[in-house]
Amino acid sequence: MIVVMRQGVGAEQVQAVQNLVTSWGLKPHVSAGAQRTLIGLIGDEAQMNAESLAMLPGVERVMAVHKPYKRVSAEFQPERTVVKIPPVRHGDRGLTIGGPGVVVMAGPCSVESREMLLALGAFLKGAGAHILRGGAFKPRTSPYAFQGLGVEGVRYLVEERSVVGMPVVTEVMDTRDVEMLAEFADVLQVGARNMQNFNLLKALGRCQKPVMLKRGLANTLEELLMSAEYVMSEGNEQVILCERGIRTFEKFTRNTLDLSAVPVLKRESHLPVVVDPSHGVGHWDLVAPMARAAIAAGADGVMIEVHPDPTQAVSDGPQSLTPQRFKELMGSLELVARAVGRNLV
Amino acid sequence: MIVVMRQGVGAEQVQAVQNLVTSWGLKPHVSAGAQRTLIGLIGDEAQMNAESLAMLPGVERVMAVHKPYKRVSAEFQPERTVVKIPPVRHGDRGLTIGGPGVVVMAGPCSVESREMLLALGAFLKGAGAHILRGGAFKPRTSPYAFQGLGVEGVRYLVEERSVVGMPVVTEVMDTRDVEMLAEFADVLQVGARNMQNFNLLKALGRCQKPVMLKRGLANTLEELLMSAEYVMSEGNEQVILCERGIRTFEKFTRNTLDLSAVPVLKRESHLPVVVDPSHGVGHWDLVAPMARAAIAAGADGVMIEVHPDPTQAVSDGPQSLTPQRFKELMGSLELVARAVGRNLV
Amino acid sequence: MIVVMRQGVGAEQVQAVQNLVTSWGLKPHVSAGAQRTLIGLIGDEAQMNAESLAMLPGVERVMAVHKPYKRVSAEFQPERTVVKIPPVRHGDRGLTIGGPGVVVMAGPCSVESREMLLALGAFLKGAGAHILRGGAFKPRTSPYAFQGLGVEGVRYLVEERSVVGMPVVTEVMDTRDVEMLAEFADVLQVGARNMQNFNLLKALGRCQKPVMLKRGLANTLEELLMSAEYVMSEGNEQVILCERGIRTFEKFTRNTLDLSAVPVLKRESHLPVVVDPSHGVGHWDLVAPMARAAIAAGADGVMIEVHPDPTQAVSDGPQSLTPQRFKELMGSLELVARAVGRNLV
Amino acid sequence: MIVVMRQGVGAEQVQAVQNLVTSWGLKPHVSAGAQRTLIGLIGDEAQMNAESLAMLPGVERVMAVHKPYKRVSAEFQPERTVVKIPPVRHGDRGLTIGGPGVVVMAGPCSVESREMLLALGAFLKGAGAHILRGGAFKPRTSPYAFQGLGVEGVRYLVEERSVVGMPVVTEVMDTRDVEMLAEFADVLQVGARNMQNFNLLKALGRCQKPVMLKRGLANTLEELLMSAEYVMSEGNEQVILCERGIRTFEKFTRNTLDLSAVPVLKRESHLPVVVDPSHGVGHWDLVAPMARAAIAAGADGVMIEVHPDPTQAVSDGPQSLTPQRFKELMGSLELVARAVGRNLV
Repeated sequence: MIVVMRQGVGAEQVQAVQNLVTSWGLKPHVSAGAQRTLIGLIGDEAQMNAESLAMLPGVERVMAVHKPYKRVSAEFQPERTVVKIPPVRHGDRGLTIGGPGVVVMAGPCSVESREMLLALGAFLKGAGAHILRGGAFKPRTSPYAFQGLGVEGVRYLVEERSVVGMPVVTEVMDTRDVEMLAEFADVLQVGARNMQNFNLLKALGRCQKPVMLKRGLANTLEELLMSAEYVMSEGNEQVILCERGIRTFEKFTRNTLDLSAVPVLKRESHLPVVVDPSHGVGHWDLVAPMARAAIAAGADGVMIEVHPDPTQAVSDGPQSLTPQRFKELMGSLELVARAVGRNLV
Repeated sequence: MIVVMRQGVGAEQVQAVQNLVTSWGLKPHVSAGAQRTLIGLIGDEAQMNAESLAMLPGVERVMAVHKPYKRVSAEFQPERTVVKIPPVRHGDRGLTIGGPGVVVMAGPCSVESREMLLALGAFLKGAGAHILRGGAFKPRTSPYAFQGLGVEGVRYLVEERSVVGMPVVTEVMDTRDVEMLAEFADVLQVGARNMQNFNLLKALGRCQKPVMLKRGLANTLEELLMSAEYVMSEGNEQVILCERGIRTFEKFTRNTLDLSAVPVLKRESHLPVVVDPSHGVGHWDLVAPMARAAIAAGADGVMIEVHPDPTQAVSDGPQSLTPQRFKELMGSLELVARAVGRNLV
Repeated sequence: MIVVMRQGVGAEQVQAVQNLVTSWGLKPHVSAGAQRTLIGLIGDEAQMNAESLAMLPGVERVMAVHKPYKRVSAEFQPERTVVKIPPVRHGDRGLTIGGPGVVVMAGPCSVESREMLLALGAFLKGAGAHILRGGAFKPRTSPYAFQGLGVEGVRYLVEERSVVGMPVVTEVMDTRDVEMLAEFADVLQVGARNMQNFNLLKALGRCQKPVMLKRGLANTLEELLMSAEYVMSEGNEQVILCERGIRTFEKFTRNTLDLSAVPVLKRESHLPVVVDPSHGVGHWDLVAPMARAAIAAGADGVMIEVHPDPTQAVSDGPQSLTPQRFKELMGSLELVARAVGRNLV
Repeated sequence: MIVVMRQGVGAEQVQAVQNLVTSWGLKPHVSAGAQRTLIGLIGDEAQMNAESLAMLPGVERVMAVHKPYKRVSAEFQPERTVVKIPPVRHGDRGLTIGGPGVVVMAGPCSVESREMLLALGAFLKGAGAHILRGGAFKPRTSPYAFQGLGVEGVRYLVEERSVVGMPVVTEVMDTRDVEMLAEFADVLQVGARNMQNFNLLKALGRCQKPVMLKRGLANTLEELLMSAEYVMSEGNEQVILCERGIRTFEKFTRNTLDLSAVPVLKRESHLPVVVDPSHGVGHWDLVAPMARAAIAAGADGVMIEVHPDPTQAVSDGPQSLTPQRFKELMGSLELVARAVGRNLV
């Protein structure tokens, strides 16, 4: 931390800062400039309270020098984290997220019925997708909208997993459901609205399944990293970061997909980074170009909503691809992955 | 709903829309304009799926005519809701929020110790505050920051309530804590980060304590109303709406306090509206002018952070008033309330 | 400036920073912390280039200690600027903006006709307004929308001024118009879209009429102050700052009126601060509460759109008050001004 | 337009809407629903004033059905516009923007000296860049920052053009400079801060040089299209749209580069779309991945800041590539262009 004093403060105000800093076991380092005096802090900043310093008379600002995240940081751990998804059936190979290959997660927004899920899962696997997405518990803005099939939806996902053999990513919304969902899902997704549901993050930190953490609608990348830090600080190191669009004033798209999140997060952190263009843009005709752009920007994976008949989808139909369009997209994703020196897993 | 067709669509595409609409039991009303054909829907729109319509070939847009909220709406219930806080001790009078009087909630960001809470509570009561605020469970961006005293903090709030006699508002962050907190707190606060934690909202809808719902950092007022609708649709009609600032690009303030939320929410809804200027601005010297502005804009109450020694606060010190400054503020709030035809309760 | 070095940089990288700093005639002040080395700069920072420093190998960040504005700053000039509007007719008293009294500017969005302007001007003067607003040159999003009466509109404003006797504020959009408008208008307004039209600001800095500078839709308060600095650095010290709403994701209001701008700007700067609630909210029924809130927050004035028949206004009808509603508002503004220790001029 | 009446309005209010609509020569089409009455408007909407309608008693909302832009619209002109840059020297081939090939514009933020410009221009041409960028007039937030070499800078650009032979794009900030710059520059750039400087747009619409219009910091894509409409409505059809990042709350990047602008603008309009990742992200290490992503998203070109020694750049050094890094980038851009079925021009 650096404490910047106001112009013209007296010696006793500088002394007060020094006293407080010393009381925490840190060493103050005073440097009197032409206009302002600065006081640098040396020692373990975990012992101090920046807000208290900022309140002292004569203090203009307290500036952080260090980054607030540790375990997620590329400085703390230089080798990149590769999340491992074990094979779901005997004889299958497993998957990795964050290695050289690019991963494609695809599926319906909501689990709607057993038949749809099994048929779509089989199609997507045949088209080359790696992980099936599907929500059993759905966060909806309106209490009058479809809230998900709940436990029944979970049963269909379990069945798909054993019959079709695709690993499953599904959303967890409630601390009370963590244990149940961790038992069968291959990746537990935290939705944008729950990115700062800290009790949920802590509970996920205590289970041993990979967690995919979606950026909240108005959250900075630093906050996303701090939420990953919550999960990791409880012991779970298998965290995947997901950009899915932030809220801005633009109206043509549902959200503004911030693809610069990909290179920023890969520079700041050692965690894998995936992109959800479907929620990012909200209209199916924009999904394919943005999925290609995500991979060109360096994403380790993309998550695509696919529905056998988007006009009949109970949620997010407008942003869902038909199976045929998804198949065409897969071909072009492979080409872009190769153009940036990678390939689909 | 109104379905807007693209320019130059054929009759079979218009017919497809009519067929789908009819299949839901609604009546389509086609009106062919010079450039575009419009199809209005007549009947119970709860039976339909706007997204499915938007997906049909030839459809350019589907526009909502009706508002998505019902129970919170001033159209649905013209008389204003007045939330009642019963007396906490024998012989006291109770309180109302949303009546002619303006309510002041005040207290520390976090419950820090028994002594501090009791002494500050007594001071605030003497200064004319009506409800004591204080967090026992604290949502913090960093897992390494103080997370609140938890159940111990709750015990101190219970004690303050019986000894000093101020009703208490405190935050609930987890569905598992709703029952426990509902037993003693007078108002249960949902924080900005949990405004769309829908399971929490449903759990609060099933208890019988007033709920104060804070607007999320990137949530529209319509979404705030929809979250109130979640609580009310489960049976709890005692909901208070709270503006506490949204996230923008501006850096001088912690958030941008959107005071126009006050007249908008009071026009759209029958629920009481309060303002939290402390979180809205994040710096104590801006709190007093914005608290006065909130009341001038028509707020039914304000929530102010006060700490006996802000430089020692474990959280939110920079935005906390000293007790002395709070006392001075109370005088000016009374003057502004009178200027707009009201008074402090 | 403070230069923060990355963890583990070598002595030669620190030396390179010192060399560059010294080459500018500044003195580097190295302080080696436990984790990072910091280098403070002492001397005249106008000689340096922060971006060059940020580019040197091993540099993590360059942090500004000083504020970038000078002439507008309350540190630079502690006594508050009071803008003087001389009397427009013999025998009238002049006006001041930024003194103890609160100023009300009112009028139509656009100058539409001679008759309307004269009649409305007389009404507004009678109702207690101090300055007549009216646009002759109009910035419109669409090239097909009404673009203002131009020079003809200017003639009507000149006539109003001499016949009715209200001073006039009107918008200048083009460097080529500055001289002409400066000749007759009492205050020259820079619209939100031109807040960073730097050539226009410089031209206004060279004329001797008060300039009212509106905050841009996505501009920080620091940028607003820097734009005022442009005007002042050319020699014109009569600058009024105006908050008129910023663009956010909220849809109920046209913009989000950021009233915390008022106390922030009054703390950072010595310039008068006024608020335009009409553009801030965009709906007439929200204008009155927000005008009252602006004065409660400490504004030195408000600017209100009034139209004799808003349903016939060529622009901004929905946010215009009728004359009758304006008259009622004036009474309540006086009450709020008194509640905060001021009065209408 | 569709007029939505409030619930329970009387017949006389519906009639008033019909009367006003009829007075404009349009035909009202009333459809009385279960809850609300809707009135559709048939005829030439250019004759009407939506705001006036919105003001009538009993009217809840007026909803636009048609898009506000015409000449820029892909509905109005289905064949795509290809902007032609004639050869700058005898014997050279010219260039097209918006055809099958992808165009790369590169160069320094500011023109700093004759030597630098000529040397860098020759290098960039050799590395495969197509157009040289360089600002002679610079919009800077601070009046104390370098404001560009002005006319002297223009002379160096003219010399580069004839000596090296690269066409030139440069920014125009003032209506008074349009004629002079149009005489020599190959593309005239309108910067983000001037996107709604409507007098400048009109002046550019009356010259016959291609105009590259950058999206403003807080402008919607619809507003960008409306600004292009300003240029085209004056007769200049050679308009290029440029995404360069919008302002959000995120702090790791200078702006948030909205790449979804590319497919949206290419769907809505027939104009070429280019991307400026340098301003979009603000840090050189993020430029390359975002340039690749831009092309993967379908951009017709990218604009990249390059400086021989970024640590010595007078402006935007931190976001400038070194010549060597630019050369490496060119190779990868070619690969991505091919992956999406295109190539560099």
